[in-house]
Amino acid sequence: LAGYLARARGVLADPERIVVCSGFTQGLALICQVLRGRGEMTVGVEEFGVMDHRRIIDGFGLAMVSVPVDDAGARPEGLDGTGGLVLTPAHQFPIGVVLSPGRRSQVIEWASGTGGLIVEDDYDGEFRYDRQPVGALQALAPDLVVFAGTASKSLAPGLRLGWLAVPAALLDEVVAAKTIVDRHSANLDQLTLAELITSGGYDRQIRRARLVYRRRRDRLVSEIGRTSPGVRITGIAAGLHALLELPTGRTERDVLERAAARGLAVDGLGEYTTSEHRRRPALVVGYGTPPQHSFTAALARLSASLSG
Amino acid sequence: LAGYLARARGVLADPERIVVCSGFTQGLALICQVLRGRGEMTVGVEEFGVMDHRRIIDGFGLAMVSVPVDDAGARPEGLDGTGGLVLTPAHQFPIGVVLSPGRRSQVIEWASGTGGLIVEDDYDGEFRYDRQPVGALQALAPDLVVFAGTASKSLAPGLRLGWLAVPAALLDEVVAAKTIVDRHSANLDQLTLAELITSGGYDRQIRRARLVYRRRRDRLVSEIGRTSPGVRITGIAAGLHALLELPTGRTERDVLERAAARGLAVDGLGEYTTSEHRRRPALVVGYGTPPQHSFTAALARLSASLSG
Repeated sequence: LAGYLARARGVLADPERIVVCSGFTQGLALICQVLRGRGEMTVGVEEFGVMDHRRIIDGFGLAMVSVPVDDAGARPEGLDGTGGLVLTPAHQFPIGVVLSPGRRSQVIEWASGTGGLIVEDDYDGEFRYDRQPVGALQALAPDLVVFAGTASKSLAPGLRLGWLAVPAALLDEVVAAKTIVDRHSANLDQLTLAELITSGGYDRQIRRARLVYRRRRDRLVSEIGRTSPGVRITGIAAGLHALLELPTGRTERDVLERAAARGLAVDGLGEYTTSEHRRRPALVVGYGTPPQHSFTAALARLSASLSG
Repeated sequence: LAGYLARARGVLADPERIVVCSGFTQGLALICQVLRGRGEMTVGVEEFGVMDHRRIIDGFGLAMVSVPVDDAGARPEGLDGTGGLVLTPAHQFPIGVVLSPGRRSQVIEWASGTGGLIVEDDYDGEFRYDRQPVGALQALAPDLVVFAGTASKSLAPGLRLGWLAVPAALLDEVVAAKTIVDRHSANLDQLTLAELITSGGYDRQIRRARLVYRRRRDRLVSEIGRTSPGVRITGIAAGLHALLELPTGRTERDVLERAAARGLAVDGLGEYTTSEHRRRPALVVGYGTPPQHSFTAALARLSASLSG
């Protein structure tokens, strides 16, 4: 796994610093537990993100500071006294931007200056299409960054397989936390994944899936471009979702209601933030979700919800 | 799973009150988290037990009260102000006694009188040999007892599959706790176990394993009886371990050193308690552990460590 990570995502970690866990959820929970154990009270999160992750942080009794996200990614501001900062550097969720080189330096400066810990949520790092690979933030500062990878997007969320590459100074605490919550993750699943990786099957699956998702993305872009030229589609160089910025005069609520009436489940950007942001209203469209046989129909429904 | 449980161990629970978790470890961790969330500060544990379980309880910031264990099982004493009581009613670990009907009434009286929660650790409930099945304590008071089952003994600990039958009033809190620590347990493992159960394969495995363990137990009893007649063997009606009480004049330390010199890993009773107990010095011998091909050799080494 460590070898695979090093090769695929440029992560720097000895094999013994990799902790296998039950998806990103448990990875984040373990880090929260360790931060609480160290007496930390606050964690920084990106202004836009998965609300379930905030529920985890909150569930461990940590308060949150929300950092702004712009076209260069997260801006590390207002982090005085926070013990950690959870980021999606490769592909901000859901905005879709990459954390810029300048911002990477800034967040690492923050961490090295304050002793804060960066959690790198690499949720869809395997899926990039028409851009150069974005290296892991962890590779720039392996002692300040916990890299969190997952098989939830590349294989299936139901597997509950994720991994943390942990700074040496934090390893004992993470392992101790893992030991008391479930001892270790399931051996058979880990052995199966290891076999899948060493056999080359995992890489083949990634390549196959990348092709499928890329085609879906291209169809989404061309269909919406044709039927709703006023919609701007962003964040599509990587991942499994796109941000569809609505034209002037359209509200998220209006479009979501039209989508729901057509039996289509999409989210508004508003569902991924609690801040009073200044971005345009937008839809967050996960194009990996519909089964292959219903993708065309889903696309037509989305198109109808946006136009007219 | 729920149906199987109800049939096999007499557990009373709707299917929707079963929470699948990663072994007993996670089950206990979830209960500890819920008890802490309710403001509880103390949990009762049996005077003899697995120290790892105490580390879990301690890891969640709960203090412990140790209750005495005699030949009728745990005696619920000194439990004023404790929010929970963790018991091994079917086969006390490691003493091996069954919680008597009278004691069952007493612990349930304690729970119903104080609102305390009983955690029933049914670690080896499938393995009984020459006694009538012992019903689950949970069946007597499903609203006061969390039943915790596991596939760790019946299949393998590496599977990390356990289950809690949770009182209705506690269910939401347990599910919420599970959601933030790892969302859910691995689907493929659960589906595989479900298939194993419905196909009858699980029952066949239990019957086969029961026969193997029973033979091992019989060989242990006859070999030690022959070579060390001063050793009293107890707790053998069920489970995968026996308690070997040492004859007068022998200390645990002495026998353990002799065993270690022969490359044999066994534990003394002292490793399973922190209390100043008045039981005889004894060995805790897990006869399920050695591979089949080395069982004879292990038995000979044990015998040599005990005699002479």
